[in-house]
Amino acid sequence: MASIFTKIVQGEIPCHKIAENDNYFAFLDINPLTEGHTLVIPKKEVDYMFDLDDELLAGLHVFAKKVARALQKAVPCVRVGSCVMGLEVPHAHLHLIPFQMMSDMSFTNPKLNLTQDQLAEIAAKVRNHLDQ
Amino acid sequence: MASIFTKIVQGEIPCHKIAENDNYFAFLDINPLTEGHTLVIPKKEVDYMFDLDDELLAGLHVFAKKVARALQKAVPCVRVGSCVMGLEVPHAHLHLIPFQMMSDMSFTNPKLNLTQDQLAEIAAKVRNHLDQ
Repeated sequence: MASIFTKIVQGEIPCHKIAENDNYFAFLDINPLTEGHTLVIPKKEVDYMFDLDDELLAGLHVFAKKVARALQKAVPCVRVGSCVMGLEVPHAHLHLIPFQMMSDMSFTNPKLNLTQDQLAEIAAKVRNHLDQ
Repeated sequence: MASIFTKIVQGEIPCHKIAENDNYFAFLDINPLTEGHTLVIPKKEVDYMFDLDDELLAGLHVFAKKVARALQKAVPCVRVGSCVMGLEVPHAHLHLIPFQMMSDMSFTNPKLNLTQDQLAEIAAKVRNHLDQ
């Protein structure tokens, strides 16, 4: 059965898309730790990040860097951190988390409660900073 | 002035080394969240991970995958997570954290108090699983 992320890639489940190419897809986490919290995934449905072949793993991080640079310009943050844990959904995903303080990146923090309109606005801002 | 990590790479500060090649270096975190918690760095002294050029960034994650696979065999864990925050030391570093539960990866957890002998033993176990 397709993972929830594959359904997002295929448009069966809506998302606030940030970027896409042949191999990768980036979209806003709907339960964000911070404004701009984004998930970057390979379109290929592989459960564990370190099971990706070298080329796909390497490319994911180059793709994520482009997204991170756009995030840095689009939302208030000192840096964009990244994290892979990956037990929630069996489809490898990298969290990109813009942060002001390192403690902003703690997954034990309460999630932001953003409306769909707010998420759409953030996604539009980030997309505006891609490829600039 | 050389970062503390550059001093580790150059052997001026001792460490429990896991792996090294021309561009990258991996060693045990001396304040580990879990047994086997490892730092992977580029030898090139760049402060922010997303300032690495694409090739160096991509290669770091391929190098880290080899280390993560060795960690997975060497220490008790369900997976190896990864995290980049990077405000502590101005030299980009990827945390590789073997975990049983996602909460093991929280940086607010108390650190393990391991002796140098225990760290040396863990490092030897991990090195034994490299390239197998």
